[in-house]
Amino acid sequence: MIISMKQHTPQTGVDEVCQRIRDFGYKIHTIEGVERVVIAAIGVGDVTACLESLEAMPQVERAVRISAPYKFVSKEFKKDKTVIRLRNCEIGGGEFVVMAGPCSVENEKQIMESAEAVAAAGAQVLRGGAFKPRTSPYDFQGLEEEGLKLLRKAGDAMGLTVITEVMSDRDVPLVAEYTDILQIGARNMQNFSLLKNLGKAGRPVLLKRGLSSTMKELLMSAEYVVAHGNNDVMLCERGIRTFETVTRNTCDLVAVPVLHEMTHLPVVVDPSHATGKRSLVPALCRAAVAIGADSILMEVHPCPEKAVSDGAQSLHLPTFAAMMRDLQPYVALWKRERSGARS
Amino acid sequence: MIISMKQHTPQTGVDEVCQRIRDFGYKIHTIEGVERVVIAAIGVGDVTACLESLEAMPQVERAVRISAPYKFVSKEFKKDKTVIRLRNCEIGGGEFVVMAGPCSVENEKQIMESAEAVAAAGAQVLRGGAFKPRTSPYDFQGLEEEGLKLLRKAGDAMGLTVITEVMSDRDVPLVAEYTDILQIGARNMQNFSLLKNLGKAGRPVLLKRGLSSTMKELLMSAEYVVAHGNNDVMLCERGIRTFETVTRNTCDLVAVPVLHEMTHLPVVVDPSHATGKRSLVPALCRAAVAIGADSILMEVHPCPEKAVSDGAQSLHLPTFAAMMRDLQPYVALWKRERSGARS
Amino acid sequence: MIISMKQHTPQTGVDEVCQRIRDFGYKIHTIEGVERVVIAAIGVGDVTACLESLEAMPQVERAVRISAPYKFVSKEFKKDKTVIRLRNCEIGGGEFVVMAGPCSVENEKQIMESAEAVAAAGAQVLRGGAFKPRTSPYDFQGLEEEGLKLLRKAGDAMGLTVITEVMSDRDVPLVAEYTDILQIGARNMQNFSLLKNLGKAGRPVLLKRGLSSTMKELLMSAEYVVAHGNNDVMLCERGIRTFETVTRNTCDLVAVPVLHEMTHLPVVVDPSHATGKRSLVPALCRAAVAIGADSILMEVHPCPEKAVSDGAQSLHLPTFAAMMRDLQPYVALWKRERSGARS
Amino acid sequence: MIISMKQHTPQTGVDEVCQRIRDFGYKIHTIEGVERVVIAAIGVGDVTACLESLEAMPQVERAVRISAPYKFVSKEFKKDKTVIRLRNCEIGGGEFVVMAGPCSVENEKQIMESAEAVAAAGAQVLRGGAFKPRTSPYDFQGLEEEGLKLLRKAGDAMGLTVITEVMSDRDVPLVAEYTDILQIGARNMQNFSLLKNLGKAGRPVLLKRGLSSTMKELLMSAEYVVAHGNNDVMLCERGIRTFETVTRNTCDLVAVPVLHEMTHLPVVVDPSHATGKRSLVPALCRAAVAIGADSILMEVHPCPEKAVSDGAQSLHLPTFAAMMRDLQPYVALWKRERSGARS
Repeated sequence: MIISMKQHTPQTGVDEVCQRIRDFGYKIHTIEGVERVVIAAIGVGDVTACLESLEAMPQVERAVRISAPYKFVSKEFKKDKTVIRLRNCEIGGGEFVVMAGPCSVENEKQIMESAEAVAAAGAQVLRGGAFKPRTSPYDFQGLEEEGLKLLRKAGDAMGLTVITEVMSDRDVPLVAEYTDILQIGARNMQNFSLLKNLGKAGRPVLLKRGLSSTMKELLMSAEYVVAHGNNDVMLCERGIRTFETVTRNTCDLVAVPVLHEMTHLPVVVDPSHATGKRSLVPALCRAAVAIGADSILMEVHPCPEKAVSDGAQSLHLPTFAAMMRDLQPYVALWKRERSGARS
Repeated sequence: MIISMKQHTPQTGVDEVCQRIRDFGYKIHTIEGVERVVIAAIGVGDVTACLESLEAMPQVERAVRISAPYKFVSKEFKKDKTVIRLRNCEIGGGEFVVMAGPCSVENEKQIMESAEAVAAAGAQVLRGGAFKPRTSPYDFQGLEEEGLKLLRKAGDAMGLTVITEVMSDRDVPLVAEYTDILQIGARNMQNFSLLKNLGKAGRPVLLKRGLSSTMKELLMSAEYVVAHGNNDVMLCERGIRTFETVTRNTCDLVAVPVLHEMTHLPVVVDPSHATGKRSLVPALCRAAVAIGADSILMEVHPCPEKAVSDGAQSLHLPTFAAMMRDLQPYVALWKRERSGARS
Repeated sequence: MIISMKQHTPQTGVDEVCQRIRDFGYKIHTIEGVERVVIAAIGVGDVTACLESLEAMPQVERAVRISAPYKFVSKEFKKDKTVIRLRNCEIGGGEFVVMAGPCSVENEKQIMESAEAVAAAGAQVLRGGAFKPRTSPYDFQGLEEEGLKLLRKAGDAMGLTVITEVMSDRDVPLVAEYTDILQIGARNMQNFSLLKNLGKAGRPVLLKRGLSSTMKELLMSAEYVVAHGNNDVMLCERGIRTFETVTRNTCDLVAVPVLHEMTHLPVVVDPSHATGKRSLVPALCRAAVAIGADSILMEVHPCPEKAVSDGAQSLHLPTFAAMMRDLQPYVALWKRERSGARS
Repeated sequence: MIISMKQHTPQTGVDEVCQRIRDFGYKIHTIEGVERVVIAAIGVGDVTACLESLEAMPQVERAVRISAPYKFVSKEFKKDKTVIRLRNCEIGGGEFVVMAGPCSVENEKQIMESAEAVAAAGAQVLRGGAFKPRTSPYDFQGLEEEGLKLLRKAGDAMGLTVITEVMSDRDVPLVAEYTDILQIGARNMQNFSLLKNLGKAGRPVLLKRGLSSTMKELLMSAEYVVAHGNNDVMLCERGIRTFETVTRNTCDLVAVPVLHEMTHLPVVVDPSHATGKRSLVPALCRAAVAIGADSILMEVHPCPEKAVSDGAQSLHLPTFAAMMRDLQPYVALWKRERSGARS
């Protein structure tokens, strides 16, 4: 920690701060600058508690932590990328994984058709929501357990891994029974009760970045899951909220290389929620591959115009198939880049 | 709904849209503009589903709802302000209510001292966290049930109403047993599982605005609670997230009169989280009263420098007492304004 | 400056950084932390250039300046508040100043009527735009010199100080000829060519905060004006841009006490642009007084429905008169607070 | 325009609005909805003035324009992409153009070395600042005319097109004398005096998006330049300002396909300012190519550690050369995509 004192703080004020820092188990290093005194605290201790205590002292101008607030998810803790093994593929290694499917599981026909098309196009994972976080209490809230069953059935029929969202700590065991990957939505990224319960869920977790969450906060939320016992976490950029209104969200695509510098966890891009508009999805998918994402998670639907949710951002199945073909040369370059980076 | 078609859409494309709208039970009104066709849909139906379906059609440029997406919380539904009756006061009526206390309940001595000072200064409600939403899994997570007991004890000793946060739908019954008001934190504003469970909680709810939530979304979350059976909801502005870093958050104080125009629910301002800095709190409290808030919710602590959380934004107890005195003439003007507005 | 090195940087890398810092004329203080080396640079030098150079070195994790980047505008440089003397009043001292008038000067009748009402209501300054920054090239761009003349005439007729916007360094002499205060719009807050030219303009400057400018950047822009020779600068909070769309902008009202802590310059609030909506203006004016602003700058119009710009946020003249009356008890409290603070 | 009235507006209020709309030359179409009256205005007129007037009427809930506020820059006005012909290349056509060079022109040796490396790596345009917009008045402000001369000399020596920034309407003729492309910085995107003067400058313009400007506003600023007589405008995404602090700005890369849908003007990406960090630039360049940008504009320097500005985001010349090689297969795919799109 580096603590800068307010200008003209008397020596007694400086001493009081030094004593407080020592009380937390740190050693002190005092630097007399031209304008003010700066104190460095060295050692290992409860950084947050110490920082909060110092910031509450009136003579302290600012207290800044130097070390990262997360541990297990950091590159410093583990250099090699985390590779998450799934039924039919692995994420974070040498394979570019595509997850696709409808926003909501609506009925057996719809999810079966989707699964067939997803498998035929060469994607590895089937998505589909059974518990839906909806802004309005009057909107479709999902088929719940019935939806989970249909998703599982469709995935099994096509040999696909399945992913679905869980919204409450109470539902974790139920959802984990049916799905291969547990998805945590953007609005629940800091639902700490839920995060803690994922530690023992026995399933990999896909953690979406909150609408106005910083990358550090995303990593802290991942740290919750890992610290509670589950190492298999992937992070998902799905667009953040800004002043721009032409797109549903603003995709912070640079988050991909930034996160690769900060953490060993795989990084996924969701081009559907990031844009909200079908016509923008293929270009963003190409860019996501080019910038080095480990996977994309996107929405497709047999008939988007009749979808109960997110139709405007869902690709028609033939468009999806075409997009997957067009993506191949980019994936080939991705593999070359990846093998180079790992060699 | 108003649906504007893309330029040069052929008649068959317009017809297809019209049919879709009729399928949802609406009547059609077509307007041939100079540049494009615009369609008005009139009637009552499932607006969201219809909008989503239309937006998914390629010939549609934009589909806009005219009616508000919320109902029970709107001024149109209920003109008179909602007044929430508590043990020793009421919020939303002719009384300006002050809620104060420490961020976390830490031990009996701390909460008792706080309660005494809160009561002595003339505040009506005691706050104190027992379940704490912390960004880091390594930070203090609250005393849980033990904290609830201490808070209740302190409130009872001083004749104060008590408020505390609940973080999981699972904990609602437990927390409701000990507290008078259930607080929903900013990070849980769109935790829809939790919101639904508040409907039958039998306690008034204080709903904090999410860090990047619009006022409409705040109202939709309140609508969840009301639609599930609980009318006693108050809304809380606690600062939103912007690019500015000098303050912890940016207080959108104008949200107070805006919400008063949109809803009958009481509006509370939290000057502590909105600023993150003790020295700014008194001025913001004055402004909150002047702009017409129904209540403020703020942090005080017997010894902020030793607080386990939020020390930098907590007022010392004597400063709080002084601030309460200085606030009185503003509260007097508030009462005059309020009685005028209601006469 | 505090420079933290990347973990595991070899000694040669640390030495290279130390040498670079010494080359800029600073003394070095090296701190060996548990995880990394941190270096403090002490002395006086070209901080920005040194910081930029260090940040460009691959072994540097982060370089943070401790001292403020501005000088003349800081409280450390000058403790007493700057008081700007105008024709009929002073801003920054013991008087609460109201500036009001139409968005644009449209014709003689309109500006004369406005001036009469502004004076009658007790305001001291008349505003009116002659050069208008409009998002669209097809919108009314202002009466230019003709508008300046009318504004001057109206101000003189009523004994009011006048304020108007200048948009180009080229126009500074012309505008300064007719007006008492030069207004710099939000979109020009970082028009550095313009700022430099204000140094010798011989007129006080009202500098509006940019739509997404931090308070530090606002102070740096003020520093430009002062460093080029003009001490009479007032800062204006007029709402920043956020994700919220119900109001035109989001008023960061807490900027007022924050700026009072950082600078000696007077702080003005513009409730019209901050909200974009007439009905919200009176409540925000009360709050601006209560939070300690030195002045408000607002839009009024004899017939807002026929205004060529900003009609929706302009008060009708009788509403303005009523608002001024209602504001008096708040201004009285403001004076008490101000005299207390200065005693 | 679509105008929705407030609920329960009496017929006289509706009539008043209808008359106002007719006064602006529009025809009226009234729609009686279940909850409120909605009015459609059909025809051609001064949309902004009419909208402003209607929004100022108390009985109007909302007034929304349907047609785009820009004309010349829209796809509707001109279907074919604008191709801007330069000395040695064209932007907007079948060629992917790379613009590179130092942030500031510092001296002859520096700009010459840069130009050589830029040309050797296969880039077509040399950038270099002579007038620098700096947040602080105490930072290096550029070599001004001397810098322009050096840039021109270096460009000529290597057969490169040159681009440099102009900051004031006053400087347009001078800068236009030396440079091939006039760059407008983000902070000047809404410097309307400057924009107007670009109309007759006789040089193509690269217009950077403002830090918090919407894409519509960017297009409106481009419309200013075109409406004043200059068709050769390219738009540049250089990162917007959000709450995220790990990167200097947040790159809204999806702006590229969005702008391609809205306008015929070429779109450029600036990966240097968008990230602020050298290590992130190559990945973002790949993504910019993949998503369909027409060009990239980036910073390189012979010795970034000694650069007077932006060293941390400038690539070393050998890294730039390597990056250009690695980019080739992506550019090849871009050409395939482009030729397909145009065939």
